[in-house]
Amino acid sequence: MKNMVACDKERLADKIHTFSKFGDTGNGGITRLSLSEPDLQARAEFCKRMKALGADIVTDDMANIYATFKGSEDLPRIAVGSHCDSVVQGGNYDGILGVISAMEVAETIVTKKIPHRHPITVMIWTNEEGARFDPAMMSSGVITGKFDKNKMLASKDKDGITFGEALDASGYKGDEKNRMNPKEYMAFVELHIEQGPVLEAAKMDIGVVEGVVGMVNYEFEFIGQAGHAGTVPQRMRKDALYAASEAIQYLHRELDKLDSKLVYTTGRIICSPNVHTIIPDDVKFTLDARHQDPKIVQQVVDVIENIPKELAKCKVSYRKLWSRKTVAFNKELVDLVEKNAKEYGYSCMRMYSGPGHDAQFVADILPTTMIFVPSIGGHSHCEIEKTSLDDCWKGANVLLQTILDIDKK
Amino acid sequence: MKNMVACDKERLADKIHTFSKFGDTGNGGITRLSLSEPDLQARAEFCKRMKALGADIVTDDMANIYATFKGSEDLPRIAVGSHCDSVVQGGNYDGILGVISAMEVAETIVTKKIPHRHPITVMIWTNEEGARFDPAMMSSGVITGKFDKNKMLASKDKDGITFGEALDASGYKGDEKNRMNPKEYMAFVELHIEQGPVLEAAKMDIGVVEGVVGMVNYEFEFIGQAGHAGTVPQRMRKDALYAASEAIQYLHRELDKLDSKLVYTTGRIICSPNVHTIIPDDVKFTLDARHQDPKIVQQVVDVIENIPKELAKCKVSYRKLWSRKTVAFNKELVDLVEKNAKEYGYSCMRMYSGPGHDAQFVADILPTTMIFVPSIGGHSHCEIEKTSLDDCWKGANVLLQTILDIDKK
Repeated sequence: MKNMVACDKERLADKIHTFSKFGDTGNGGITRLSLSEPDLQARAEFCKRMKALGADIVTDDMANIYATFKGSEDLPRIAVGSHCDSVVQGGNYDGILGVISAMEVAETIVTKKIPHRHPITVMIWTNEEGARFDPAMMSSGVITGKFDKNKMLASKDKDGITFGEALDASGYKGDEKNRMNPKEYMAFVELHIEQGPVLEAAKMDIGVVEGVVGMVNYEFEFIGQAGHAGTVPQRMRKDALYAASEAIQYLHRELDKLDSKLVYTTGRIICSPNVHTIIPDDVKFTLDARHQDPKIVQQVVDVIENIPKELAKCKVSYRKLWSRKTVAFNKELVDLVEKNAKEYGYSCMRMYSGPGHDAQFVADILPTTMIFVPSIGGHSHCEIEKTSLDDCWKGANVLLQTILDIDKK
Repeated sequence: MKNMVACDKERLADKIHTFSKFGDTGNGGITRLSLSEPDLQARAEFCKRMKALGADIVTDDMANIYATFKGSEDLPRIAVGSHCDSVVQGGNYDGILGVISAMEVAETIVTKKIPHRHPITVMIWTNEEGARFDPAMMSSGVITGKFDKNKMLASKDKDGITFGEALDASGYKGDEKNRMNPKEYMAFVELHIEQGPVLEAAKMDIGVVEGVVGMVNYEFEFIGQAGHAGTVPQRMRKDALYAASEAIQYLHRELDKLDSKLVYTTGRIICSPNVHTIIPDDVKFTLDARHQDPKIVQQVVDVIENIPKELAKCKVSYRKLWSRKTVAFNKELVDLVEKNAKEYGYSCMRMYSGPGHDAQFVADILPTTMIFVPSIGGHSHCEIEKTSLDDCWKGANVLLQTILDIDKK
């Protein structure tokens, strides 16, 4: 690594440690649901630290937080950040590492007095996980026009509290005019953990994220005939679970013929009546399939639509639950991330994100990209989720240099 | 049919209609849980009618009811009956038809003044279904020494009421000395619906039940590795649901090589975490397998024990939940049922019962047999459960003549 600017690794470690206390489960992870008490603690810590470094802080009407460090010229802002909410019993890296590394980038720029022309805005997005209020990526979805705000305000948590009520009570509801917008912002960069095993397996330090893969999600249903386990001869049965097992085999056989980068998952199965002495008469399972190339996704849909209408004498049907198109990040920004990773001497690979992120919505209104760092064992959304401090630091350095490069544009 | 004694078909129809009101769901079926208000109504109706015909009624300590019609000699009793409790949203035939046809047999004998040497005892067994208090066949199990009475008294329904409490409140708790026993009883015959489609498919009027098939019940478990649906490459996955689908295929392939009378069911599957975007890491399913020949049941166990220890990179294990041995009914009584069906000119076939019945426990202490009548569409344990009035009447006639034949011994 040539003489490049770098973040402070110990300071970064301290930030990870500090934020791990907000919602600490006592088992190495956190539960920090959106706008819950632990989330408000994390937000307060963020604001306190950003204010101490000289940031001007505002929030918008969805409680997204914008901590802005003035630039030397009156130019559009460069935004950088992620989310600080988690799933139930989540880890200390998903989302929050993108906030922490953005904070560390700002602290490095301020303390090292690195000149920058554009204002730099460190951000927290509200309710990315959707773990308390459905759907995920709610606030970036609202401000980029994907979701209807009134519907979002009415979204209820399991205790019947609406997102609107939680927003009012949070103290973080601000003005709609403060929303990120293409006139006042020039770019958005989000660092995130990979949440998968690819970087670790490939022994890579940095994932250069080219976009977010397109996906389809279907539900299959198999209708058979219930009957007593002891009375119906095998040849007279219409066993919906057996039909479903044939369908899973069919899907694996056919989908495995497509591209090796295709990922697909039959994650949820519901069997009815689900009693050990009754032949199942209704089984449903979901298929989630993701690939960056819309042509491959279409081939998946073809496989789905060609599933036999009858399997093991049971009626087979399917319905589309949802889909999303592949989002490609800004090519120039993607190239910058790759260049910087190499200049630091870090190993890196280009990849697509499987999971969705706020950045994919922002990409519709601003030049956007993401930086991935490795997840140990590929674990995420669980308490053992971890990224080594070294990898966190490398990611923060690439983020820092990328922000500084964007500033030069 | 030669000049044979017969039950009254209209009177039988009236009984079926009367009892269908106790626990009527309004959808053609009943919910008559053991010792619930509808069950107590059915018991009261039974006692009222039996008393009116001259029966002497006692109950034992498990609330089994014995309505005895004196014989002309001081001899052991012939018992006949079934249960009047049902599953939730059950039908008007399972169990209760065995009680009703026994009542009709008694009414025919009494009103036609048919002489009999032995006392005839019409019975109701308590809590055969186990739908309110686990386990099934509780009372016959207690009086034949299969179950520990104190454990049974402690069995709770979903509202936390124990069987013992329900027993005390029922008004039907009697003396332990009234239990059916081999000294005072000479035989037990139970008429029941088939609960399966075999008799209907074979166009048979009567099932001559040779016994109750032996069974084994196992649970398989597949341990994989959870992961995000979008991040883990297919080749790196350990998908427990895919492994389970391979196992279901394996079991069908191997078990289908065994005897054509073998029935087996994978009725219950539990998938964890069962979320559409997460690769399942723990899947369990049950296998229930039944056959009259212990050698075939052993072959099933061999197939289970030879399942690969690893499927689709997931760890495979199994455990036995329970098993029961084949119960053979009394050969002489089985032959009597067949002879009588033929003498009435009814078509009949020998068969084993897949489901368990009180008769299988009684068979351990008394000469016992059962008579099956066809279930339309094979339906049972549901509101559409039905046996045609003609078939009910044919069954009652065979029951009547069998009791009279036993009386001659």
